[in-house]
Amino acid sequence: MSLTFYDYTPAPSPRRARIFLHEKGIELETVQIDMTAGEQLGEAFRAISPTCTLPALRLEDDTVLTENAGITAWAEAYQPNPPLLGTTPTEKGLVATWNARSEFEGLFAIAETLRNSSKGMKDRATTGPVNYAQIPQLAERGRTRLGHYFDTLNARLEGRDFVALDDFSLADITALVAVDFAKWVRVEPSEAHANIKRWHATVSARPSAKA
Amino acid sequence: MSLTFYDYTPAPSPRRARIFLHEKGIELETVQIDMTAGEQLGEAFRAISPTCTLPALRLEDDTVLTENAGITAWAEAYQPNPPLLGTTPTEKGLVATWNARSEFEGLFAIAETLRNSSKGMKDRATTGPVNYAQIPQLAERGRTRLGHYFDTLNARLEGRDFVALDDFSLADITALVAVDFAKWVRVEPSEAHANIKRWHATVSARPSAKA
Repeated sequence: MSLTFYDYTPAPSPRRARIFLHEKGIELETVQIDMTAGEQLGEAFRAISPTCTLPALRLEDDTVLTENAGITAWAEAYQPNPPLLGTTPTEKGLVATWNARSEFEGLFAIAETLRNSSKGMKDRATTGPVNYAQIPQLAERGRTRLGHYFDTLNARLEGRDFVALDDFSLADITALVAVDFAKWVRVEPSEAHANIKRWHATVSARPSAKA
Repeated sequence: MSLTFYDYTPAPSPRRARIFLHEKGIELETVQIDMTAGEQLGEAFRAISPTCTLPALRLEDDTVLTENAGITAWAEAYQPNPPLLGTTPTEKGLVATWNARSEFEGLFAIAETLRNSSKGMKDRATTGPVNYAQIPQLAERGRTRLGHYFDTLNARLEGRDFVALDDFSLADITALVAVDFAKWVRVEPSEAHANIKRWHATVSARPSAKA
């Protein structure tokens, strides 16, 4: 068996893993699951991943990893170079801390906004096999939280080239995907977020950003 | 400088890190931050951790890690034995996948229920320095999601001693804390969740569970 990556190119969550795997130079087969057509909820994909979410990665031994965290942890051990989770204990702690912050304060806030307001996502207020009704207040709250996230990210990038370390890491990937995903809810860094704009231009120029 | 762990013993989030650090046998000074009195939102703690969340860990070089993910990644590298994040690439992927699932499907669902319904948590619908109003629909949704999480965890534990691997790992810590935290919203494993009950008795008997 080869490695099989279940992807949907336009979507932000699989993009996180796709950038990480590209930076690692890991070769794999890619299968597109058309989320616009709801293919991630169909029987065929559910048999591969009962969470009905992307990304998913089928390993050579048939194990299926269904979360960005799982794919990332696997890939760092499978192909240690270049290191993307930090090298020293402190570096590893900083990368994981800033990855978690961009996930919770950034990506989740955007997903809350999008999924609770988009007409095309009626009853799809969370990912997964179960439908949940939209909660308009949650969309509003997500938008407010996103503004705070941009302020936090901009402050962190003051005098820094990258989010967690002196080098590119997973923390940059998650923040990059968050900043690009924010455009889906029509939020972009403002004039006050000059650090984000500078950093975003740098990390967007990496080949992996276009993978 | 010694290692300083910012804790609040009754709260579920710092308990995750506390169990992990106890299993590692890492020696540190512990400082209690009284969340019931709102001490995590006060100026003194905010100067240590601007996220106003627990746990936090101050390292010997004064770096402060503010997320469970960061503390865990640091500790696994600082004290590799016993390994709690898996050893092979596949194991590392499985531990991270199941940790993420218990976090998103379990802990977050419980926190949504509690924070959006508890009278004592008015305007504290999320963690962090900014206040957000409660959304009663989110409390309801969290309770439904929690039921699905228990079903998922019970199915995963069919024929298994531990959640992710053949040995105890971070995935067991997160699931243990989720099952105990669920009692705060008066949800416990039902008769249908015999696998959870068996596993819960085993992991609760470890000294770290009472740390």
